[in-house]
This record gives sequence, structure tokens and C-alpha cells, in this order.
Amino acid sequence: MEYPSKLIEKAVNEISKLPGIGKKTAMRLALHLLKQPAEETHLLSESLQKLRDDTRYCRTCHIISDTEDCTCKTISKDQSVICVVEDTPDVMAIQNTGQYNGLFHVLGGIISPMDGIGPEDVKIDSLIQRVAESDGEIKEIILALSTTMEGDTTAFYIIKKLEPYDIKITTIARGIPIGGELEYTDELTLGRSILTRTVYEQTP
Amino acid sequence: MEYPSKLIEKAVNEISKLPGIGKKTAMRLALHLLKQPAEETHLLSESLQKLRDDTRYCRTCHIISDTEDCTCKTISKDQSVICVVEDTPDVMAIQNTGQYNGLFHVLGGIISPMDGIGPEDVKIDSLIQRVAESDGEIKEIILALSTTMEGDTTAFYIIKKLEPYDIKITTIARGIPIGGELEYTDELTLGRSILTRTVYEQTP
Repeated sequence: MEYPSKLIEKAVNEISKLPGIGKKTAMRLALHLLKQPAEETHLLSESLQKLRDDTRYCRTCHIISDTEDCTCKTISKDQSVICVVEDTPDVMAIQNTGQYNGLFHVLGGIISPMDGIGPEDVKIDSLIQRVAESDGEIKEIILALSTTMEGDTTAFYIIKKLEPYDIKITTIARGIPIGGELEYTDELTLGRSILTRTVYEQTP
Repeated sequence: MEYPSKLIEKAVNEISKLPGIGKKTAMRLALHLLKQPAEETHLLSESLQKLRDDTRYCRTCHIISDTEDCTCKTISKDQSVICVVEDTPDVMAIQNTGQYNGLFHVLGGIISPMDGIGPEDVKIDSLIQRVAESDGEIKEIILALSTTMEGDTTAFYIIKKLEPYDIKITTIARGIPIGGELEYTDELTLGRSILTRTVYEQTP
């Protein structure tokens, strides 16, 4: 495509490097910015720069944070349980449910030999270390990973690594989503939901 | 939603101001940038800033350009015809067809009383001025506007304004797209395509 201006060409090229954004969408976004007050673009540009340069990760739970110590050690949290997730949005999603008040551990990725991501590329060693150093204070590890081949591989690896420790390992329930119709649920999920059926009781 | 970091909250807020991008997509883009080398974000941020600060519009045809004089006056172009379009991507789309080698005139918008955009907000006066000052060199104006209420209003206004000048006014053909099926074409388009039928001949 021939661009009428080098500046717009450069901007479109950079924007379209973002995932899920092609050249046409990038062009639409660039034109949008040109029609807004310059201040808008300055704020956007500055916030991206600051995000990249100043973001830290908590050295304990590896969540994205403003400092190297996030709120994961505050007294109001249940220090006996760690929920293991792949990335920060998962933490936000679980926190938003209001059903969990324990600690988190962000792996920052998932074991995927196909993509060349091995166990040493995700924060598993650091999880084992947390458990080892807790002197039995951590009683339970909840694995909240995707039900994909990679998620299962990662879960299996973590379970193996945790074998020497006297700790309960659980996984979030797999089943039919609330509001989901039985008829349209895939066989695997339906089969699993029968195998892992729970005793009928009033949900809290 | 509760964000684990102020920096990511700010970035997500700014990114999600862009059209068609919600908070979830903004979060995904922010996390993507965090996983890429810092250089990537710097290039993106800098190109946006430069785009907004240094982009100029050609003072003749109002296309987005690096300078205030674009290539619209170069001798290789047919100086006798001006194609009127709403915005810069339309110019690029027409240029990509390779079927047009004349001049352009970018209105920079379209008359839309509903959105409070009147004739004085788009570059119509400047088009009339180009025609008036051309001393008859410009022989034809092609209107390449959308077939919406706003597009038709704008076309009608331009035609009225051009009445005093001895100039041919044409509009791009409306009809069934190449590859389109007759059966699924809307009645309005089909009706129009019969009324404005063309003599059968070998297309160039």
C-alpha cells in the first residue's frame, strides 16, 4: 500500500505490530488520533512508555505491580493458600469474583514445548521455593490453569515438583458453565462434570 | 475492575479510548507490550507522538502529508480532473486500483447535521476555489462519496455550489460488486444498476 506520508506509514507499521491489529485497523486508529486533540496522543504515548519502563513484578508472587513488593503479604489475606495462574489478567478475573481471599502465584507463561517454553522459563521454581520456605504455613495450592494440553502439562509438572511437600493440591472445578445448556456442552466437559459431581447443597 | 498496578491501569484507560478497543483488549495489548523488548514500545510511542505533532495537510488537496505541498501538482498527473473523497484512506484505495491518475480533493469529513457537521466544517469552499482559480483547466469533478444520507447531502451541496462553473460533474458507478451475486443484492442497488446500465463492451 502506498501511504501519502512517511509519518503515517511509520505509525501504521508500528501500530499493526500489536496482536490482532492489521494495517487497515492501524490506519483507522492513526486517523482517529489525528482528529483528536494532540493532548490525547501525548497521554497515550506517555502512558505506554511509562508502562514499559517503570512496571515492576512482585518478587514473591510475580504479579505486575508498581513496586517489587505487592500487597500479597498484607495481613488481610489468607496466607495458607496459593492460587497458581498463568498471567496477571487471571488474577484480576479471580479477584473480581469476590470468592477468593488467598495468595496468588503468577507463572508468567505456561509450559509449551511447541513454542520452546520449558519449565525454567516460567516461575515454577519460585513457587516451590515459596512452599519450601513457608514452614508449613501454606496448606493448599490451587491450580487455576487453562484446560489445554499446555495447561495440563504445566499442572502435571507442578504436581510432580510438589510431591516432597505435605501439601494439598486442588484444581478449579471443570464443568458446565452457569447458564450453559446441557444439550450444547461438549462430551468431554459433560463426562468430566458427571465424574466430578458434587453433593447437592445450597451454594453460599 | 481492580488493577494490580497504577501504571497498567493508566495505560489500559488510554488505550481503551481508541475506537473499537475495550478494556479487555487494551489489557491484552498492554501485556503484549510488557512481554516485548522495551525498544518496541519506544518505537510505537515515538511514532504516535511524531504522527500527531508533525503531520501536515497539503494546502491544495488537504491530503495527509509530510509537508504542506504534496505531490498533487506533479506533472505526471492528469490536472484536468479532481476526485472528491471524504478522507485519506479513500485516496489510497482509489490509487491502489491503478485506474485513476488525476488529482484528489480530501474533504476531511462529510456534511452531517445529526453530528453537527455543517458545510463550513469540511473543505468544500476550498474545492470551489480550486475550480474557480483553475481558469478552466479543471474539466471534471468526480464525486467518490459514500452512498449514505450524509454522502448524498454532501454531493448535492457540492453540485449546487459548482453550478456557476462550466464543469462536468460525475459520480463513481453504483451497482453490483464484481463477484457479487444478483440474488443477494439489495433491491435499491439492483434497481440502480438497471437504470444506469452500460453498453456491453470489453472492459479495458
